[in-house]
Amino acid sequence: MITSVFNSRVKRVAALNTRARMRKQEGQYVVEGVRMFLEAPGEEIQEAFVAEGFSHERCMEKLDAMPWERVSDEVFRKMSATETPQGILCVMRMKHHDLEEMLKRENPLIMVLEDIQDPGNLGTILRTAEGAGIDGVIASRESADLYNPKTIRSTMGSIYRMPFVYVPSLQEAADRLRAEGIRLYAADLSGEKWYDGEDYTGGSALFIGNEGNGLRPETAALADARIRIPMAGRVESLNAAMASGILMYEASRQRRSAGGAFL
Amino acid sequence: MITSVFNSRVKRVAALNTRARMRKQEGQYVVEGVRMFLEAPGEEIQEAFVAEGFSHERCMEKLDAMPWERVSDEVFRKMSATETPQGILCVMRMKHHDLEEMLKRENPLIMVLEDIQDPGNLGTILRTAEGAGIDGVIASRESADLYNPKTIRSTMGSIYRMPFVYVPSLQEAADRLRAEGIRLYAADLSGEKWYDGEDYTGGSALFIGNEGNGLRPETAALADARIRIPMAGRVESLNAAMASGILMYEASRQRRSAGGAFL
Repeated sequence: MITSVFNSRVKRVAALNTRARMRKQEGQYVVEGVRMFLEAPGEEIQEAFVAEGFSHERCMEKLDAMPWERVSDEVFRKMSATETPQGILCVMRMKHHDLEEMLKRENPLIMVLEDIQDPGNLGTILRTAEGAGIDGVIASRESADLYNPKTIRSTMGSIYRMPFVYVPSLQEAADRLRAEGIRLYAADLSGEKWYDGEDYTGGSALFIGNEGNGLRPETAALADARIRIPMAGRVESLNAAMASGILMYEASRQRRSAGGAFL
Repeated sequence: MITSVFNSRVKRVAALNTRARMRKQEGQYVVEGVRMFLEAPGEEIQEAFVAEGFSHERCMEKLDAMPWERVSDEVFRKMSATETPQGILCVMRMKHHDLEEMLKRENPLIMVLEDIQDPGNLGTILRTAEGAGIDGVIASRESADLYNPKTIRSTMGSIYRMPFVYVPSLQEAADRLRAEGIRLYAADLSGEKWYDGEDYTGGSALFIGNEGNGLRPETAALADARIRIPMAGRVESLNAAMASGILMYEASRQRRSAGGAFL
């Protein structure tokens, strides 16, 4: 059992939790908790750590197939990114996705995020995207880090399953999407059409912008149509994750109504 | 200028920010920041506090009409519930809403929340409800506190405008709604109908449950129909605010399509 908070493996996990740059360089990230551990694809788990008093039948069974280590409660708290750690965490290998993989699907439905800043929003978008049957999520490089512990928690496991890719240029990504016959929709507060007046049953990409500012004008200009979610009262905008979810579920609803395969 | 953190008015504001019970007893709460101050209905503001170096033309104009006080930056940090205070806050009088007021509208659309725990979710639901044109939000007493600083921030000002009421019994509220001819819909993971297969153009109440557990079975049993949001992949549930938003915007979409008044 590791009992020293100065142990190099302990310090490494703590650093992976706090340093985005290190995660990127090493291609690894940390997930915590029983549920996240149980859902983690075994072949992506590098190693696991379990707190002194932790015990959970299905977790212990799964641990049999991988390198793992007991650590003291104090050490576990040092490694953990949560205030009330559940006593199990593992280091994951990042999975590589790319745009081409998303484009192989028939009539793909793709979510495109520009500079989303809040890790919780990013995670919630991924979770909702999986639920809505989205084929992939594309994000500008300036968006929040998918492997931030807060983002991971908000995905509720969708991080393992949703194809996700950061791109250096949304302009180039838009060109690539359009070349595949995918229609581009920009969520824009000054959009000329209601979001539910458009048809998303063909290949569609939904662009949504930053929490404070929305899409940059040059990004909105790339779209075939600018769409708007109606807002009553004195509401100036919706939460970015909420707006994304409403758009994705409208597309999903139309595809279901049109008799497309679902579930 | 108040320069002592031990000043009784300073301590009172700090306590209002942290103690839900005190807010309830005194019928007052605290809002912070330029935007929240500017949107605050003047007649509900009790007093305002401004940090030493704070200056903002429209805020200073609005302050003319009310009692306000300068405080040192140290004192302001003590009063504030945020990590990076904007330098202006005010004490608000709670506005009283009741169920009867919501029922006066024609074909009301009402959101009913059971034991929502996360303040951010509650605030986001209020903001989205205003956007979707909901007539009122009803919450069980065990739900998060609307006047929690985090909830207030997430409402982005909707707290001033959305009719909101805590009720001691959702059963009694359901009876009252049904007596008015309002149809009750329970969001339920085991619901037998897709949410978008129901008609919300008549008076409708949408019930949504706690983040971890959903609606209690006895609450779901009160509904005329149990509805379900389809989820693809391995998603077991959506975030509670997200699910609420998707339901509210579907109702709003149907009402718009049916030619109902909107905006």
